[in-house]
Amino acid sequence: MSGPRWGRVTVVSPGLIGGSVARGLRSRRLCREVMVVARHEAAIRTVLDAGAADAGTTDLTEGVTGASLVVLCAPVSALPGMIRAAWPHLVPGAVLTDAGSVKRGVVEAARECPTRPDASFVGGHPMAGSERSGFEASDGDLFEGKVALVTPTADTPAAAIAAATDLWESLGSTVRHLSPETHDHLVAEISHLPHLAAYALVAAAEADALPLVGRGFVDTTRIAASAESLWTDIFRDNRRPLLDALTRYEAVLDRWRDLVARGDWATLEAELGRAREVREKLG
Amino acid sequence: MSGPRWGRVTVVSPGLIGGSVARGLRSRRLCREVMVVARHEAAIRTVLDAGAADAGTTDLTEGVTGASLVVLCAPVSALPGMIRAAWPHLVPGAVLTDAGSVKRGVVEAARECPTRPDASFVGGHPMAGSERSGFEASDGDLFEGKVALVTPTADTPAAAIAAATDLWESLGSTVRHLSPETHDHLVAEISHLPHLAAYALVAAAEADALPLVGRGFVDTTRIAASAESLWTDIFRDNRRPLLDALTRYEAVLDRWRDLVARGDWATLEAELGRAREVREKLG
Repeated sequence: MSGPRWGRVTVVSPGLIGGSVARGLRSRRLCREVMVVARHEAAIRTVLDAGAADAGTTDLTEGVTGASLVVLCAPVSALPGMIRAAWPHLVPGAVLTDAGSVKRGVVEAARECPTRPDASFVGGHPMAGSERSGFEASDGDLFEGKVALVTPTADTPAAAIAAATDLWESLGSTVRHLSPETHDHLVAEISHLPHLAAYALVAAAEADALPLVGRGFVDTTRIAASAESLWTDIFRDNRRPLLDALTRYEAVLDRWRDLVARGDWATLEAELGRAREVREKLG
Repeated sequence: MSGPRWGRVTVVSPGLIGGSVARGLRSRRLCREVMVVARHEAAIRTVLDAGAADAGTTDLTEGVTGASLVVLCAPVSALPGMIRAAWPHLVPGAVLTDAGSVKRGVVEAARECPTRPDASFVGGHPMAGSERSGFEASDGDLFEGKVALVTPTADTPAAAIAAATDLWESLGSTVRHLSPETHDHLVAEISHLPHLAAYALVAAAEADALPLVGRGFVDTTRIAASAESLWTDIFRDNRRPLLDALTRYEAVLDRWRDLVARGDWATLEAELGRAREVREKLG
């Protein structure tokens, strides 16, 4: 066995995702040192007391300096500013990546940074969210068995792709590469729209109905317990693909409404059956 | 301790729900004898081999005769015919009930049966469904901790209400009474619409997106793995309330689409927050 894969890895914003990255790196001894950057001293103390990192700072520049890999795990609206702030301080050879749910904004922010042949950025997105948030919900095994998406562009250096791929694979995920545009389009369908749909199911239910719910409603709307600030952020950042996905979704609902209204049960059953077959394959 | 609560209880159609009722009655010794009625001998043998019943028959008349409580657990479209077929054969004092997801049709079928002062019907609906179906998915503890709905009308004898309430409470559920109309209206919102919405989320997702899904999509669409024949049946039987619930749901989606399109993030976040608060209370 060789030593740890990385020297210092810096995790910025140790919430659910960042805390889980820090814990996972440390428990697997994947790097010599895990450094966390948080806005408040109290958050850093919590992370250090939990044994989830070796060191911490509230200063992004200090946190980035000396790191061979920097993983930005803040809410999506904060990421472009962090990329711009971190970029000049990356040491030669360093890779900057993120864990945000939308990729267009971060990829554009990185593209607009001054050219540096000795540092690189690639977007990432572990599909490991939860309705819970914050460091107290973090778990070093959160990424085990999950899918993680890495979103290179034509300009992304191979070293950056390799580092981000290594990171998520080392934490137990299966990594898939896709373009930032494809990512945002597909994730709108399988994550952003389902969140909006789940919130809407709750919003559309009358108060009298809620004491009667069974497991079906509870599971279907679990993600509607997610922090609305994070999701408003994501919807804002991925507005166009979300609207497109919503249009496709409402087209299906409208078609099925029409089948129900007309009493065309055979066609409805056939269409539900196709969806059931697809869903069964997801396990 | 007194002896078992009932003499013979007959469970018609021992699938997920019926099999669970039979198992739960037997394991808790709630009656002297559990009789099952199924269409095929093979199904009866399976139930008896599993120790889920004491006796079985493919003949509804034979199964109903001598039972103090008859629980119809077939798909909703089969229930009115079963009520008509069972009614003349109920012994004096017997209570007939069902476990279907829609109550208008069964209540009407029972109302149209010849008056019998010595037998009674009341509708029931355990909120304990699953994407799985069939006897092999049954579980005697399925109803523990769940809500069960009992739907009397102004004409329902107190003895019928008491028997159906006893049944579900004995199996571990919390029972709530509501009118058949209110039941169908509220259940459309918290069960039927969520099923349609979940099937539609799967139908609206492109094939390329499916290998990328995380737990959010998997949970939100779990019920889209449900048997489409059962759900087409339910949608047919509860058409008007389902369409009303769909209208309310699409009104929320349309309003939120407008907020996203206009970029009114503060209003959107406030509305998502109200849904999140409601959802959190469901646990």
